[in-house]
Amino acid sequence: MTTTLSPTPTAGLDRAALLLDAFDGPGRLTLAQIVRRTGLPRSSAHRMLERLVQLRWLRREGRDYELGMRLFELGSLAVHQDRLHRAALPFLHELHRLTGHAVHLAVLEGIDVVYLEKIAGRFGVGLPSRVGGRQPAHCTSVGKVLLAHSPESVVDRVVEAGLPRSTRFSIDSPAAFRAELQKTRERGAAYDREEDLVGVSCVAVPVGTEDNVVAAISVCGPSSQIKLDHRLTAPIRMSAKGAWRNYMSTATPGAGRADRYSA
Amino acid sequence: MTTTLSPTPTAGLDRAALLLDAFDGPGRLTLAQIVRRTGLPRSSAHRMLERLVQLRWLRREGRDYELGMRLFELGSLAVHQDRLHRAALPFLHELHRLTGHAVHLAVLEGIDVVYLEKIAGRFGVGLPSRVGGRQPAHCTSVGKVLLAHSPESVVDRVVEAGLPRSTRFSIDSPAAFRAELQKTRERGAAYDREEDLVGVSCVAVPVGTEDNVVAAISVCGPSSQIKLDHRLTAPIRMSAKGAWRNYMSTATPGAGRADRYSA
Repeated sequence: MTTTLSPTPTAGLDRAALLLDAFDGPGRLTLAQIVRRTGLPRSSAHRMLERLVQLRWLRREGRDYELGMRLFELGSLAVHQDRLHRAALPFLHELHRLTGHAVHLAVLEGIDVVYLEKIAGRFGVGLPSRVGGRQPAHCTSVGKVLLAHSPESVVDRVVEAGLPRSTRFSIDSPAAFRAELQKTRERGAAYDREEDLVGVSCVAVPVGTEDNVVAAISVCGPSSQIKLDHRLTAPIRMSAKGAWRNYMSTATPGAGRADRYSA
Repeated sequence: MTTTLSPTPTAGLDRAALLLDAFDGPGRLTLAQIVRRTGLPRSSAHRMLERLVQLRWLRREGRDYELGMRLFELGSLAVHQDRLHRAALPFLHELHRLTGHAVHLAVLEGIDVVYLEKIAGRFGVGLPSRVGGRQPAHCTSVGKVLLAHSPESVVDRVVEAGLPRSTRFSIDSPAAFRAELQKTRERGAAYDREEDLVGVSCVAVPVGTEDNVVAAISVCGPSSQIKLDHRLTAPIRMSAKGAWRNYMSTATPGAGRADRYSA
């Protein structure tokens, strides 16, 4: 097999992205598995993988490759340097201290939510959320509150994707789901009644203004301890307001904030 | 300016790594700043940057570029898929619950430590440690315990780098530092007496066996509440033992574990 020249300056980058994306799921992969998943020629894949190991974007353990330390460092920098995350962090800690429950900060990415932060005790270990992790937006309180403030076209995409259920309480009918988003808008908060995990309930509120919601904050706990009403919503709303004020006070004039977290 | 073909399949990757490394520090950069930092031709840098934005490894806000969501997702996957992190996590939570202080899991990377996990309340926000962040190994308890179990050549590199002080309590004399590592080996634990941050003390123990230390666990708190003796060391040692047992029980036979975290 001959080495081919990259036809464009970004071809090597595209191939690296393809290789790294292959690790989204299984964790560790052999060269043969990577070749199968990416469709790249074996010799070219091998050369790229070895370079990725040198750069510490991947790590090799015996015959297995896995995601590496440099990628971890860059990824954690991405959230550490994120102005919204920084602005919200003290309020999230305070909310966790106040409620004793798991606190999340999340943004919408396509039809999923991605968690920017999770502050939780041991209870949090059992939750499906994790920092940097994705969940289908329609089953989570953060996702529902973000969708309730998204353009209709985004909601259409979620509905077209089929509203797969996580539990028997998940809302899987398009009509019921659209009605749920309407209720969410009216009350200014989303409730998750064991729709993502049986036994766990959550409340989420938006961060931002009516026409510029950039993130959501939620509190999750055992259903027996979570009252889905204003007593829990009020402190979450206070945190969201504080985070937003903090975020706006550090805004760069002229930067396109409204596009900040568009997918 | 003409577009040049990449001379090797990994050249595009190398350039992407160079571009991303430029963000290690300042956070957001303009095209001009990136060109200055990387030495790449402006047109080629611009093309790569735009592709990185499409891949969501970078994000553009107005004229500024910053690290993006996909990098954050991949980086968080790297630690989530990390077997050691997974094996240690329940023990770290338990240690935090038991002591009430900030708990860290860290590995050695060159002459620095990188934090794989940090479990802390609001107190932790004020600490210089963060998940995915680096600290000079010689000023931290995790770093000292990892250096105490490293080859002499690694300690030499740390000493040659000059032992820069973080506080007036940092150990900056090579002789005193080598003596400190000897004491650390003898007691099987490292103490940090406000050497990284005034007012904060830490205790760290190694994770692994005598000849194969792969990580360190520390507990950090206000100096007034941290007793640098066996009362705190004992529970940390229990956690480290539990984490190591858990890690070994999930080991892949034949994988090169000793090289696991070598820099």
